[in-house]
Amino acid sequence: MTAPDPLADILSSLARLEPGHVWLAGAGPGGPGTLTLDTLAGLRQADVVVHDALVDRAVLDLAGPGAVLEFAGKRGGRPSAQQADISARLVALAREGRRVLRLKGGDPFVFGRGGEEMLTLAAAGIPFRVLPGVTAGLAALAVAYIPATMRGVNQAVVLATGYSAEEGEEAARWAALARSGQPLVIYMAMSRLGGIADSLIAAGLPPETPAAVVASATAPGQRVIVAPLAGIDQEAREAGIEPPAILVVGGIVPLRAEVLRLIEAHGGATA
Amino acid sequence: MTAPDPLADILSSLARLEPGHVWLAGAGPGGPGTLTLDTLAGLRQADVVVHDALVDRAVLDLAGPGAVLEFAGKRGGRPSAQQADISARLVALAREGRRVLRLKGGDPFVFGRGGEEMLTLAAAGIPFRVLPGVTAGLAALAVAYIPATMRGVNQAVVLATGYSAEEGEEAARWAALARSGQPLVIYMAMSRLGGIADSLIAAGLPPETPAAVVASATAPGQRVIVAPLAGIDQEAREAGIEPPAILVVGGIVPLRAEVLRLIEAHGGATA
Repeated sequence: MTAPDPLADILSSLARLEPGHVWLAGAGPGGPGTLTLDTLAGLRQADVVVHDALVDRAVLDLAGPGAVLEFAGKRGGRPSAQQADISARLVALAREGRRVLRLKGGDPFVFGRGGEEMLTLAAAGIPFRVLPGVTAGLAALAVAYIPATMRGVNQAVVLATGYSAEEGEEAARWAALARSGQPLVIYMAMSRLGGIADSLIAAGLPPETPAAVVASATAPGQRVIVAPLAGIDQEAREAGIEPPAILVVGGIVPLRAEVLRLIEAHGGATA
Repeated sequence: MTAPDPLADILSSLARLEPGHVWLAGAGPGGPGTLTLDTLAGLRQADVVVHDALVDRAVLDLAGPGAVLEFAGKRGGRPSAQQADISARLVALAREGRRVLRLKGGDPFVFGRGGEEMLTLAAAGIPFRVLPGVTAGLAALAVAYIPATMRGVNQAVVLATGYSAEEGEEAARWAALARSGQPLVIYMAMSRLGGIADSLIAAGLPPETPAAVVASATAPGQRVIVAPLAGIDQEAREAGIEPPAILVVGGIVPLRAEVLRLIEAHGGATA
């Protein structure tokens, strides 16, 4: 007699990854905790898992015993050439009849180049699905006690990238985002933190605008630094913050200090 | 001899929901497929699951056999009074020593009032955790083949709400968002779709700006309507679209038509 296993039942009730098909899936930002059941089902069925550098080792360990793990991340440098190579590799694997899971950290459509891979698969006649994941920016807010939206504070939030291939229009873009009047959640911000802060201040954000850097959200090395926008670069550097990290700017940031103050005052603890 | 069950191992390796603690968790937008493993672990450990109307029945069915399911959603009307009641209820349950899962559709911090519940728990000295979920707006993009960000199209995306308690500042807020120059993903847009489209056009967005409405993303009744911004309200009404639905506005929307055209031209199919 074996006890019923409701988890196995759930997974078997989810979609089948068929031979010759590709799922473009998000793994969430950290360990298995932020993985979705659809993506887990893909991991368990895939013949090949083509993953990037941001996918946690503990997540890859959930792949089926016969699955081949292929690293296909980008480590800076010539992104366009490598992106075309990755898309072509997905097509080739599908044409060999493999069940292919393309696994990206976070969400495949949020600064993840999933759109380009989708277009390549469609142009090659490869059947595919896009599986959303928990995006790193919103996970960073959750673990840092910073609500993405808060009644009376904001009614929108901007997800932006600190990385830009097109240098020229940087300043204009940050200016437009600053003038949105809404909090900014900026991915891949570490390498140009000072420049981004300067651009936002030049565009009219007060230097004392609250800012936070959340590094390695949901992972063991998770850290949160809070400082005024004008000082966030120096604070983060002095604290030795390393990528991956998310920069948060705006009126939602002080909620963190308020919640930490309440926890301290009322004897609570984080669960 | 029982075969090893790696799934049970995974769940047991995740955090423990302790008596008297509350987890504020996101269930994702639809069925079990977008549920995260952390939230599933919470469902299996909770004595009480306090859920809103957007949490799918199939998700609630994953709660442990002894769990009590309590509905605490808002169905329009007096949101503030009801929100205070919900927060107070979480505190009361925790003080009774229950393991409490506060389960919301999508992500608890994205238009989910999770910030207010967090502050109430902190002020009451109740230990809590915030578990991110797949937010409805980004899930809608994934299933509609609309990348949230696409190289050469946009380097940011705005998540906004179509619901506003403060009527007066509506026009100014939409004007600022329109001028961000970035695509908008608007939650709870159905009840004032025409007004939002008019405000965005009045603020300078061309009437022919591409727009889409994605209803019931990831759920069985999922539907996608595409039209120019000036016509999206009429198209959605003629199609009988019902909430919950997400409005998407901007240069990322035409990627959907492109991918559907490629699929048709190259004999592919969606997986």
